[in-house]
Amino acid sequence: MAASDSPKRAGRRPAASAAGSGAREEIEAVARQQFADLGYERVSVRGVARKAGVDPKLIHHYFGGKEALFAAVVELPLTPGEVVAELRVPSEETLGHRLARIVIGMQSNALSRMTMLGVIRAATSQPLAAERIRALLTNRLLVPIARELEIDQPDLRAALVGSQVVGLMMARYVVKVPALARASDEEITELLAASLDAVLGSAITPRAGNSTAGR
Amino acid sequence: MAASDSPKRAGRRPAASAAGSGAREEIEAVARQQFADLGYERVSVRGVARKAGVDPKLIHHYFGGKEALFAAVVELPLTPGEVVAELRVPSEETLGHRLARIVIGMQSNALSRMTMLGVIRAATSQPLAAERIRALLTNRLLVPIARELEIDQPDLRAALVGSQVVGLMMARYVVKVPALARASDEEITELLAASLDAVLGSAITPRAGNSTAGR
Repeated sequence: MAASDSPKRAGRRPAASAAGSGAREEIEAVARQQFADLGYERVSVRGVARKAGVDPKLIHHYFGGKEALFAAVVELPLTPGEVVAELRVPSEETLGHRLARIVIGMQSNALSRMTMLGVIRAATSQPLAAERIRALLTNRLLVPIARELEIDQPDLRAALVGSQVVGLMMARYVVKVPALARASDEEITELLAASLDAVLGSAITPRAGNSTAGR
Repeated sequence: MAASDSPKRAGRRPAASAAGSGAREEIEAVARQQFADLGYERVSVRGVARKAGVDPKLIHHYFGGKEALFAAVVELPLTPGEVVAELRVPSEETLGHRLARIVIGMQSNALSRMTMLGVIRAATSQPLAAERIRALLTNRLLVPIARELEIDQPDLRAALVGSQVVGLMMARYVVKVPALARASDEEITELLAASLDAVLGSAITPRAGNSTAGR
């Protein structure tokens, strides 16, 4: 299972006020895993409680219910400011290439991959989750980035960048298309980079990469 | 309801044993709509039967259960051969552009849009549906097209084209990102075309479109 390769879970230290805070973290870890593996509908507070070894009442106490539990575990581990800062670092690579590296890096990290998968799976059946992913894809993350980088038609292009990230997650980790399983991160990054450059119009490519954009 | 503008339904001839065949069509239409709107988990044979005005036993008789009902309504209304034939028609447009037109055309058609949405929603929670979408994205549709068109790395590039189509469906019709709702089909086609050309390597672009690929 994917959870076992998460460094976060394996490395977790017991908290100061041991039982309480440790339990909360454990609940979040189990919930994140289950939303990623099962989709929103098939996750239950009771099931999370059982796997986390706590009383369901404790989940209600901390989070208030399944919707709130979901909301608590789908925060992405990066902000627009951090991404923009990373994209502004001088580089030989195109904007699309650097963005593709960030995206593939997030997919390679077990924690952020699970978070993204949980949101995507939930979005297909839950209006609340769809609302949440809409916020991530627009005002919370991508549009601020696109606007900060002074891209033409920032909202539309940001939405299409987001749609590519979502589609790649679906094809790679939900549908598990064999060609994507076989391809290296580097091969996928190259093709994703070319396609993101096309969507972004490569408007603010600092220096053209010599082989990434046109392949 | 969107199902009513489906030419398939309107044009189908009555079968010999009239009542039975009409009921079967009605069941399929209701099921297609419900899988698209609700996702696989929340569709029930009883619910479909109620809305179609038939006894649930009739659905079991015709289809055998929910999985088989799902399988019956997710056939896409086009074949690899048809797509390849369309892509081989001489044109001033790039390959990506023509493919983007086909994709956006399918999304604009209520029947094929519902079919695609039903599969995508179901794929996030149902291994059977994920298997089905994997087949569509690979051996059944995209890889034959990519191979026929003699594209480099056909399996990987086909998978990425498929992932973009899935991602766009998710962003536009499931998550309903406002910028995509506001944009015209033509605007979305232009950006999708550029990005598909990038993924496909524009290897067999017959004549370069002068504004689509590099924007």
